[in-house]
Amino acid sequence: MQYNAPVNEMQFLLKDVFDADRVWQSVPALAEAIEMETATAILEEGAKITQSLIAPLNRDGDEEGVGFDNGVVTTPKGYKDAYQTYAESGWVGLSGEPEYGGMGMPKMLGVLFDEMVYSASNAFALYGSLTAGAALCIAAHGSEELKQQYLPKLYSGEWGGAMDMTEPQSGSDLSGLRTKAVANEDGSYNITGSKIFITGGDHDLTENVIHLVLAKLPDAPGGSRGISLFLVPKNTVNPDGSVGDNNGVTCGAVEHKMGIKASATCVMNFDDAKGYLIGKVNRGLVAMFTMMNYERLSIGIQGLGCSEAAYQLAANYAKERKQGKGAGRGLGGEADPILVHGDVRRMLLDIASTTEAGRALSVYVGMQLDLAKHAEGDVQKQANDQVALLTPLAKAFFTDMGLESTVNAQQVFGGHGYIREWGVEQLVRDVRIAQIYEGTNGIQALDLLGRKLVANRGDALAKLKAQVEAELEGLSGAWLPQKQQLLESFDALIAKVGDIANSSNKADAVNSAATDFLHACGYTIYGWMWLKMVLAAEQGEFEKAFVERKGMLARYFFERKLPKAHYHLSIIKQDPAAVMAMPNEWF
Amino acid sequence: MQYNAPVNEMQFLLKDVFDADRVWQSVPALAEAIEMETATAILEEGAKITQSLIAPLNRDGDEEGVGFDNGVVTTPKGYKDAYQTYAESGWVGLSGEPEYGGMGMPKMLGVLFDEMVYSASNAFALYGSLTAGAALCIAAHGSEELKQQYLPKLYSGEWGGAMDMTEPQSGSDLSGLRTKAVANEDGSYNITGSKIFITGGDHDLTENVIHLVLAKLPDAPGGSRGISLFLVPKNTVNPDGSVGDNNGVTCGAVEHKMGIKASATCVMNFDDAKGYLIGKVNRGLVAMFTMMNYERLSIGIQGLGCSEAAYQLAANYAKERKQGKGAGRGLGGEADPILVHGDVRRMLLDIASTTEAGRALSVYVGMQLDLAKHAEGDVQKQANDQVALLTPLAKAFFTDMGLESTVNAQQVFGGHGYIREWGVEQLVRDVRIAQIYEGTNGIQALDLLGRKLVANRGDALAKLKAQVEAELEGLSGAWLPQKQQLLESFDALIAKVGDIANSSNKADAVNSAATDFLHACGYTIYGWMWLKMVLAAEQGEFEKAFVERKGMLARYFFERKLPKAHYHLSIIKQDPAAVMAMPNEWF
Repeated sequence: MQYNAPVNEMQFLLKDVFDADRVWQSVPALAEAIEMETATAILEEGAKITQSLIAPLNRDGDEEGVGFDNGVVTTPKGYKDAYQTYAESGWVGLSGEPEYGGMGMPKMLGVLFDEMVYSASNAFALYGSLTAGAALCIAAHGSEELKQQYLPKLYSGEWGGAMDMTEPQSGSDLSGLRTKAVANEDGSYNITGSKIFITGGDHDLTENVIHLVLAKLPDAPGGSRGISLFLVPKNTVNPDGSVGDNNGVTCGAVEHKMGIKASATCVMNFDDAKGYLIGKVNRGLVAMFTMMNYERLSIGIQGLGCSEAAYQLAANYAKERKQGKGAGRGLGGEADPILVHGDVRRMLLDIASTTEAGRALSVYVGMQLDLAKHAEGDVQKQANDQVALLTPLAKAFFTDMGLESTVNAQQVFGGHGYIREWGVEQLVRDVRIAQIYEGTNGIQALDLLGRKLVANRGDALAKLKAQVEAELEGLSGAWLPQKQQLLESFDALIAKVGDIANSSNKADAVNSAATDFLHACGYTIYGWMWLKMVLAAEQGEFEKAFVERKGMLARYFFERKLPKAHYHLSIIKQDPAAVMAMPNEWF
Repeated sequence: MQYNAPVNEMQFLLKDVFDADRVWQSVPALAEAIEMETATAILEEGAKITQSLIAPLNRDGDEEGVGFDNGVVTTPKGYKDAYQTYAESGWVGLSGEPEYGGMGMPKMLGVLFDEMVYSASNAFALYGSLTAGAALCIAAHGSEELKQQYLPKLYSGEWGGAMDMTEPQSGSDLSGLRTKAVANEDGSYNITGSKIFITGGDHDLTENVIHLVLAKLPDAPGGSRGISLFLVPKNTVNPDGSVGDNNGVTCGAVEHKMGIKASATCVMNFDDAKGYLIGKVNRGLVAMFTMMNYERLSIGIQGLGCSEAAYQLAANYAKERKQGKGAGRGLGGEADPILVHGDVRRMLLDIASTTEAGRALSVYVGMQLDLAKHAEGDVQKQANDQVALLTPLAKAFFTDMGLESTVNAQQVFGGHGYIREWGVEQLVRDVRIAQIYEGTNGIQALDLLGRKLVANRGDALAKLKAQVEAELEGLSGAWLPQKQQLLESFDALIAKVGDIANSSNKADAVNSAATDFLHACGYTIYGWMWLKMVLAAEQGEFEKAFVERKGMLARYFFERKLPKAHYHLSIIKQDPAAVMAMPNEWF
């Protein structure tokens, strides 16, 4: 698949929209690690490896899929060599802790590389992403011994990582977990049970896979407060760091899926496998949730990566494919490129105007994650609040827009879009999982509306609105109508949170409104991102075409996309009877 | 895959909502052929064959796909036997002309059986559907000789049918066709060229495949007015009706697709193949367009069939899958079925409220097709107008809702929805093609807004509004707000057509607005269908639960779906600059 990493757009965001150097210099840990020049070099290297090494594996990897024979999982042809090159170049450890061999790069930059890898290949990206996620959790909650033993091998990509949460009877609700942990005298635990849907649970890319497994101790309290987290290596690790025998961790099956076919989704069986506690007993979910914000953002970025890849394919096709004459705007030949047709432009502009705003938001959330981790005092507190508010939004909205974008791109291709060799239908299949895993988008919506907003009557949104108003002070007068439209949209969101908080049946009101509210919120936040980009484009030194193009996309967004927020809000009622009243047996 | 044909719902539409007996008795050709009792018996038989014979083939057929070896196309295991049973039971010829062996059933009934077959298996359904479509065209435009020679074998299902339009350089725009036809002295033609994307172009289900091929005579005028239509059998047909040697018609390849994998999508090569003119020289598109309304409706129904099948899978899953406790409405056990959750209900109600309205519209359009064919005078003229207006709408809106519904159903399943064995992801992949083929949905939208409405300044919609108002006279007072909302929606549509007709750049205004307009129109027409169903439920003799359930779905639709029409209309502007202004090179 042809892919060109949008490095210029990424630089624009880091440098001009979010003034990354200022952010990084404000925090000692980052001031030492990074400056804009380094960031640019990393983006350029990232572009090279994703374009030339990873993207070419994507189409064949989908056709070949993951093999499973006699308990052994094999990745498609070329994956192992490519993963080795990828890992040796340091990409798995890009955001890892420097004292254990990571590169210590801020997430604000990491999100952009994440997008490139997902654009190049969803399935390939997941192996590294899960490894980085496991490392993040170990770094935050593991003992010093575990960190020294495992982090360097995970950052170097020599070992892979996986998260083992779901069981057949226990998915969105983890309180029903049955995997057992029994304490040994040496402080370790024996883990027994079966997990499903384990991304990268087993494969042939690395000599070991380090599992983070949720399990229950025999005397644990019921429900979600009795869950502990354990590090369980597939193969035992000798004191010298070398890999020993199998640790009672086996893959029972790989799933046959709609997409991400080159990513191994495994049934994992643990049979008295030796594990090591991470964090505190019965506090496993807390440890898991530390990394959850990173993982959710990462999966959101899967949606962005697919949108960008789909846009590139469709825009190129629309410029090359000639078919019919553009009504009133033919270019004079026998046939015009289909890009002259209004409906084709609409689809491409829908993708571009949402993907570019989404990318900006991904950088913003990455920045807040960095500040939440490294800053102090009020700055840190505010960053934590914003992460809490914006992460569920980013995960769900990026991926919902990801499906919409890839479907639009496929539609631009007409009949060819349905044929596998053109690559665009794979993006539709691949992105679809991102709306489901890492907490379904419905659960993200409940988190956003119920826990993050209604619980505090929308304060977080009111604060955000004030911030937005201040940030957009310098915007030129031409954009006042859009600014007004944006602020009104914030007001409508805040009012709706109030309505729901006042509902006589708050639980039903939240549950029946959550997804629509999240979408209304998503379009509004994207409007904010667009005006930030317009402001930066107006104030920076750019070619006229760059500034004009950004302005056109922003106007398109405000004319045709932001109004959808009003639709979503208009159908949310204080009385949720329309959604809740029908008896179960009538479904 | 488990499937239960919604026979009761179908009877309700025929008998109570549309008073089929009255319609059928009003037209001599139908009065002889059918009455409600027969229709019910046919629906019940249809339910049996689709549930027990066809649905069980669907999942394995997707995994096995179509084989292609040494020029020979093979369908998946079980297809051939099932197709033979299906054909021998008369289903292929259900709506065929009785004088040539068809059953002569009205389309008003046929649409409901079509829905069942698509629900059971998209891929299987297409073989029969294309055969019926080819027969329809031959019946309307073929010579008596061709009809006698081909129709009985097509209706009996002994031979298959295919439409050969697209070529690599010529898809949405047929004016660039290169396939050549050269006249022979005996009145036949020699056809040479290559066609792509030919559904059911070759397979092992029947002993012959009858192709309807668009081609150009050497002296034909350029563009779309120089296209003729030819009947080209794969194998020659002897004077006694037996099948002879290959007629220079071969399959060059089968496509590897996203879905409908058990349907053979072929590259067809014609090498001096002997063909027979259908209709007049250079008037091939006219002949094709006769059946186009039937085919477009049929493909729309593919969308409906997938929606219904997806709904059934998801509703059953939501009732069986226990996970977490419903906030404020737990049923008391350790965990509740996920159906208690508002967001799950929302997804199911979205599907049900659009699918039931769509089914009603499919029957209405089928009825208009019957009247256009069999009635006379004003009734016929009005039916023709309604077919022209509603067919592009039905094709595009049913299939766009089909994708939305199947995606929603998949989401209800959580992680299991992404696993192929559960069947719901296949529906997403299968339905996706229906938005693309038989004229992309963007082209349907242009047809609706540009040719059918703006060209006559919206007269057709104004007439329809008057009809709707009259039809809903008897609705009880409780539904006045919804009726008002519906009529306002019609007014808004009519006003928007006026705006566009007055635009200074009408072509751009239509092109940039078409898809949004079609969606606004679709929700409005569905609102009409809902109030017709409510009225029929109020006035008929039904169990209270049936009437209440219809009322709840209708209220849901008016509260949560119809408002989307306003969003779509609100983003359509007289000045289409937002969509049209960006230079091609900035994409």
